[in-house]
Amino acid sequence: MLSNIPFTLSSLRAAYAAGTTPAEIVEEVYARIAAVNDPALFLHLRAKEDVLAEAQALTPDATDPLWGTPFAIKDNIDAAGMPTTAACPAYAYTPTEDAHVVARLRAAGGLLIGKTNLDQFATGLVGVRSPYGAPRNAVDPDIVPGGSSGGSGVAVGHGLVSFSLGTDTAGSGRVPAALNNIVGLKPTLGSLSARGVVPACRTLDTISIFALTVDDAYDAFSVAAGYDAADAYSRRFPVRPAQPTPSALRIGVPDAASLRFFGDAAQEAMFADACARLEANGAQIVPMDFQPLYDVADMLYNGAWVAERHTVIADLLKTQPDAVHPVTRKVIGLAETLSADDAFNGIYRLRELSRVAEIAMEGIDALCVPTIPTFYSVADLEADPIGPNSNLGTYTNFVNLLDMCGIAVPTAPRADGRPGSVTFLARAGEDALTAALARGMEHGVQRMLGGTSTPLPAPQEPAPQLAADEIAVVVCG
Amino acid sequence: MLSNIPFTLSSLRAAYAAGTTPAEIVEEVYARIAAVNDPALFLHLRAKEDVLAEAQALTPDATDPLWGTPFAIKDNIDAAGMPTTAACPAYAYTPTEDAHVVARLRAAGGLLIGKTNLDQFATGLVGVRSPYGAPRNAVDPDIVPGGSSGGSGVAVGHGLVSFSLGTDTAGSGRVPAALNNIVGLKPTLGSLSARGVVPACRTLDTISIFALTVDDAYDAFSVAAGYDAADAYSRRFPVRPAQPTPSALRIGVPDAASLRFFGDAAQEAMFADACARLEANGAQIVPMDFQPLYDVADMLYNGAWVAERHTVIADLLKTQPDAVHPVTRKVIGLAETLSADDAFNGIYRLRELSRVAEIAMEGIDALCVPTIPTFYSVADLEADPIGPNSNLGTYTNFVNLLDMCGIAVPTAPRADGRPGSVTFLARAGEDALTAALARGMEHGVQRMLGGTSTPLPAPQEPAPQLAADEIAVVVCG
Repeated sequence: MLSNIPFTLSSLRAAYAAGTTPAEIVEEVYARIAAVNDPALFLHLRAKEDVLAEAQALTPDATDPLWGTPFAIKDNIDAAGMPTTAACPAYAYTPTEDAHVVARLRAAGGLLIGKTNLDQFATGLVGVRSPYGAPRNAVDPDIVPGGSSGGSGVAVGHGLVSFSLGTDTAGSGRVPAALNNIVGLKPTLGSLSARGVVPACRTLDTISIFALTVDDAYDAFSVAAGYDAADAYSRRFPVRPAQPTPSALRIGVPDAASLRFFGDAAQEAMFADACARLEANGAQIVPMDFQPLYDVADMLYNGAWVAERHTVIADLLKTQPDAVHPVTRKVIGLAETLSADDAFNGIYRLRELSRVAEIAMEGIDALCVPTIPTFYSVADLEADPIGPNSNLGTYTNFVNLLDMCGIAVPTAPRADGRPGSVTFLARAGEDALTAALARGMEHGVQRMLGGTSTPLPAPQEPAPQLAADEIAVVVCG
Repeated sequence: MLSNIPFTLSSLRAAYAAGTTPAEIVEEVYARIAAVNDPALFLHLRAKEDVLAEAQALTPDATDPLWGTPFAIKDNIDAAGMPTTAACPAYAYTPTEDAHVVARLRAAGGLLIGKTNLDQFATGLVGVRSPYGAPRNAVDPDIVPGGSSGGSGVAVGHGLVSFSLGTDTAGSGRVPAALNNIVGLKPTLGSLSARGVVPACRTLDTISIFALTVDDAYDAFSVAAGYDAADAYSRRFPVRPAQPTPSALRIGVPDAASLRFFGDAAQEAMFADACARLEANGAQIVPMDFQPLYDVADMLYNGAWVAERHTVIADLLKTQPDAVHPVTRKVIGLAETLSADDAFNGIYRLRELSRVAEIAMEGIDALCVPTIPTFYSVADLEADPIGPNSNLGTYTNFVNLLDMCGIAVPTAPRADGRPGSVTFLARAGEDALTAALARGMEHGVQRMLGGTSTPLPAPQEPAPQLAADEIAVVVCG
């Protein structure tokens, strides 16, 4: 019964090996979407016939890494012939080309299903700032779906697709992962081309990847990543193969004074448990003063960088201010008070805080933080559309400003049944390290895949693989 | 006769080896300063007695690389106990510590003589925008001294000191070199600490070095350079030893449509000769479209970066606007019209143009440009204080924005006797390459040292030296 299999890559590959066809998977995708029946999830769902035709046209040889793999993309990423709205109807346009990353995924056999709802212009961490309504959280419809990549998080959380693309500037690729019990991989800035993506903060944006498991997220990342000369912010980072979970690392965590849970004892316990498991697995836990990181985070919305968001919609705000969501308008409107001096003073301060952080991280291999400090309900956000949103970014907002990569990974469910989640963070280019740490965390616990009732499959520790600068040596004798 | 020796490092070392004392050199320095008798050259000249005492206190063992070497610094760089004015009396303060680079030079045996005049706040390429008057050009008092490091260029041009520090944001470390027939080394951004330097554009500034020969400039650079964690803009670039002049390189030059001499045929001929010599020495000359570089350059004063200068004097402009030189006020005042959006839009455009330039430079080892397009007189600047200044930056303004390093080096004098000068430019970290190219250029010609009547000494091709990652191997057998 296809309805019983998860759309993890290993599960799909097994199904295909056993004779299932991509068309059958596509039928199942649409059946699941119908069953979920969330009108605020997809802003554009492709006609099933089109996807079926694409599935049937796949080369019969299933060697492409994403052969027959259904995926969705956030609706601030272009797909040829489908409208890009960024959740703002007045902003919509229909591109003639796929975003560079989308083209790579499709060329590798991925089947694009549709485009998902988001906090308008990717500004928010809650997923409810959209004129199209809010997608329902896949784990618990009372809590917010998370944002800004809310629809993409929910689509994976329900197991509708194997993976999805989000974007991440302040945490939009991690917060929905925590809220929907899935993995959120936030790549090193510049490793995935931003061509064909509506910018939020162009100097800080990246496409991100949601998946049900770390392996799946990393596999999709490996296909998506690659230098693109046509994106001025693209950088050359070789994608390293997945590596075994390292032990004996030094992992920085917020010290007691830096931890913030806003009174959520279950979340505090979740994080303490995760740290204890890291330590049991050989890591050295190093409590650190996170104040410099929080000072960095504060600059994202209260300082110069909000002007980056403003550059994107400056014309729209002038000609059709009412076309912008009122909360979004309020948040981004701050930029109108900022001078070029303010921008450069912010840039200087970031550089200084980055140096402080760099020195603090000497001898530290990676950081581990709670992905979110606590949970908020849709009702909480109706009461206060800004405060809870800011709180959700406690452990995410500083990351892109400090040019770190990260991956949010589910841990054991909390005592109250809500999903646990921590994020591993490391220096630019260390995506393979964060993925390895996340893999170690994910397989020490019993958990379900997203909001589904399918448990996480048994671990498949990757075989040792060669890095680009190593050679295989066969010893005979 | 000490009055006959040039203060090149090799000449000084020979004198010291022959028994001359540092105190005798100091006496000669002050005698030369008195003879030049330019009241606008030094803004602070140390009491001779103090320098003599310092000279006498040097360890007798003359192994320090700058042992007994007189030098001067631009008056936007701190020296403990001496006022830093940035050529603005109202801005002046007296630091208690040497700038990091000054401390390194003094620790290596350098003898600081004084602090030199500059275009106020290092804004200008002419050297006449100072309330203290303009230093007289060392080659021809009719032409401008160049700026903004005018005094530092003139001090070396007269042979008063062995080397001097300038700063370079738009070309302030290169234009005075061209105008005073000396070498101007503009290091890779971040390789010399900016601690204790009054910023111009903090993201683009570097201390620079003037000297009579390429070897001397590179020797001083090697002492001055080094990572400084306390400067947030410091970067880790290993200083490579001086290397022999390479041949068979591909050298990009402005194509015919990109060359700008403002009608100065002698300058055009100078540059053509320099290119012919490069070619004769084995280089492949590659004409390139410089328009993207000129587009970059245009952003420095007409775009967002002028706001960086504004941040430095914003308080002063508010409280004592008349304390700022009227031309400087006019140039920097543009920033008051710029928003944070403008700043980020400028940053995006720079990134895009940088990518264009990067692609254009694929396969190119270095660029060679005329350091200046033509000469301007003091009278020209009195008639138009801005136009000639802008023209002087034709081949310099884009360099720091594109994160390139460079070195301006004298070539053969022009037909009219004025000094010839070209600048070699290369990617960040390639300071040793630009120095090697400049050394090759300098020793193919007959020229005097600065404005003195001492010819350039015969070449000393550096002995092969070991890089940090090489080991010496002695083969016996």
